[in-house]
Amino acid sequence: MKVGVIGGGQLGRMLALAAAPLGIRCLCLDPARDAPVSGLCEHIVAAYDDADGLDRLARGVGAVTYEFENVPVASARALAARVPVLPPPAALEAAQDRLLEKNLAQRLGIPTPAYRAVDDRRSLDAAVAAIGLPAVLKTRRLGYDGKGQAVLRGAGDVEVAWAALGGAPLILEGFVAFARELSVLGVRGKDGATAFYPLVENHHREGILRLSRAPAPGLTPALQEEAEAYCRAMLAELDYVGVLALELFETGGRLVFNEMAPRVHNSGHWSIEGAETSQFENHIRAVAGLPLGSTAPRGHAAMVNLIGTLPEPAAVLAVPGAHLHLYDKSPRPGRKLGHVTLRGDDAQAVERGLERLREQI
Amino acid sequence: MKVGVIGGGQLGRMLALAAAPLGIRCLCLDPARDAPVSGLCEHIVAAYDDADGLDRLARGVGAVTYEFENVPVASARALAARVPVLPPPAALEAAQDRLLEKNLAQRLGIPTPAYRAVDDRRSLDAAVAAIGLPAVLKTRRLGYDGKGQAVLRGAGDVEVAWAALGGAPLILEGFVAFARELSVLGVRGKDGATAFYPLVENHHREGILRLSRAPAPGLTPALQEEAEAYCRAMLAELDYVGVLALELFETGGRLVFNEMAPRVHNSGHWSIEGAETSQFENHIRAVAGLPLGSTAPRGHAAMVNLIGTLPEPAAVLAVPGAHLHLYDKSPRPGRKLGHVTLRGDDAQAVERGLERLREQI
Repeated sequence: MKVGVIGGGQLGRMLALAAAPLGIRCLCLDPARDAPVSGLCEHIVAAYDDADGLDRLARGVGAVTYEFENVPVASARALAARVPVLPPPAALEAAQDRLLEKNLAQRLGIPTPAYRAVDDRRSLDAAVAAIGLPAVLKTRRLGYDGKGQAVLRGAGDVEVAWAALGGAPLILEGFVAFARELSVLGVRGKDGATAFYPLVENHHREGILRLSRAPAPGLTPALQEEAEAYCRAMLAELDYVGVLALELFETGGRLVFNEMAPRVHNSGHWSIEGAETSQFENHIRAVAGLPLGSTAPRGHAAMVNLIGTLPEPAAVLAVPGAHLHLYDKSPRPGRKLGHVTLRGDDAQAVERGLERLREQI
Repeated sequence: MKVGVIGGGQLGRMLALAAAPLGIRCLCLDPARDAPVSGLCEHIVAAYDDADGLDRLARGVGAVTYEFENVPVASARALAARVPVLPPPAALEAAQDRLLEKNLAQRLGIPTPAYRAVDDRRSLDAAVAAIGLPAVLKTRRLGYDGKGQAVLRGAGDVEVAWAALGGAPLILEGFVAFARELSVLGVRGKDGATAFYPLVENHHREGILRLSRAPAPGLTPALQEEAEAYCRAMLAELDYVGVLALELFETGGRLVFNEMAPRVHNSGHWSIEGAETSQFENHIRAVAGLPLGSTAPRGHAAMVNLIGTLPEPAAVLAVPGAHLHLYDKSPRPGRKLGHVTLRGDDAQAVERGLERLREQI
């Protein structure tokens, strides 16, 4: 079987590497000739809305998936008329719009921050009055890694934020004074079977994920169950197939929905070494209609993103339990170039590895 | 860095898949256009003694390794004059000749069966007289998977075996009434550091490996130490870099050398899921001059070769703890098409998985 992948970045690369042992070849569509998948699988060099490129993709594969959530929904729907597109385009559509995804979460009983659509300056003032400050003004679409966001702490910030973001449809969200950021990754097969990875604790800086710990330190069965219930509800509602990531805030011992990603997710990279079956393999298994693999963790893991510059591979690999993943991308400030996973039989061993890794990078 | 690999079969394929996350690309030389590496790395389609192919390989890479031991030594030596060839050609030369490798083992104090070179009918009779029967007559070169061998149980077998094998240089080996077959895989870095995987128990049928269990059931520290001592001596003697496999017989609680393979080995495939660092990654790390990774097992594993025909992937993946590896080869009787690794936290879980897998294949 051949699986089409829209996007050929690091997620497409890791999907292709996970697919090969299953006897599944990937065919990626990506406009960059030197995309990270190049050399590892077939690659159609074309824009994501290029009719000829999409046609070649549809003709060559048994199913199409995607590795980023800003795939044009029109492209996904056009493909879906010809070949299964998984996760379904409806998931893509919901995840592309912060207002739609929060409406969906609310409908499913998943707690969200207070939020209001903001379409003009007047509705921004009304939203601030309703929600109060601090709050976060975000573009509804195309935000990632902290881009398209402004925190409003006082009344003076409102005008500045409006000046920065005011051209696009926006959403104002109540600021959640979270204890920490978590994510849960679930996977659903074509037969409706589901499996969930343990909650992961995530640390961001400048809006970019820097560090994940899996399982999240101090994870209780109750918190895991709460996360799985939310993820399961979303998977069922969307008749979802593949890996779905929910980003969550933990506050007062409960979980609040932040956003979702209808794809494999940076906070699941630890699963390559740290779980019985990686998120990449499980995504491919689901899309190909194969049984899901166990999501059980193998000991403890931490994942550190390599951003902007690369450390010496030899220095990283000298750290016990360190596994290096490079994406074959040119260094550039703020760019995700790779990641390191530290795996150990207990959390202490992983923390010791993190200490040593920090000395290297 | 780019690493050249002579041979593009399943071992080359798994080397390329292990190299990619390290940011290392492989460039394989293999005469078959549809070799298992095709599509996963650059591939020079040329014979192993093709001057132009070897030239292109040497020009494109920082080091050359190989995935089978019958690489022409002349090719390896010609390459070694231009670029590091690792493991060194001397290892290749020794491993290609059952007489040379046993002489080498003897010299290093590694016990071997009784053996004699057989160059003509007269020396066969002399060897039978010296060693006694049962014994095994083998071609000195180019034997694999049980090919080029004949067991001599009685005097009547001598003539038959001679008729079958007599054209080539031969060796007669005393038959070892072994309790079981084991193998040890060691890896040595450019800096001389070594690491050893736990002894593996191997089961062959019709001369082809069918099943490996890792660690070998009932493995004692003393047996492991004995195996490591033999492997370490061989690695040091050959100034070896990369993974080396020693196939051993266990008899009377001690180990006897059978043969060696200067490459990643079928009995190490379990390490992809069953060890902290796979044999493939460690081989690439060694050849690329990177620090070795931990060879510690993660729980228990069993590896089952898929030979001749392929089972339904869905049936295999439905077995708890099963990991499927297909090599993208066309089915043919006796051909290794893939393998399944069962991993579990204890040996019992692995045995239960094996039972279920046997129902499927």
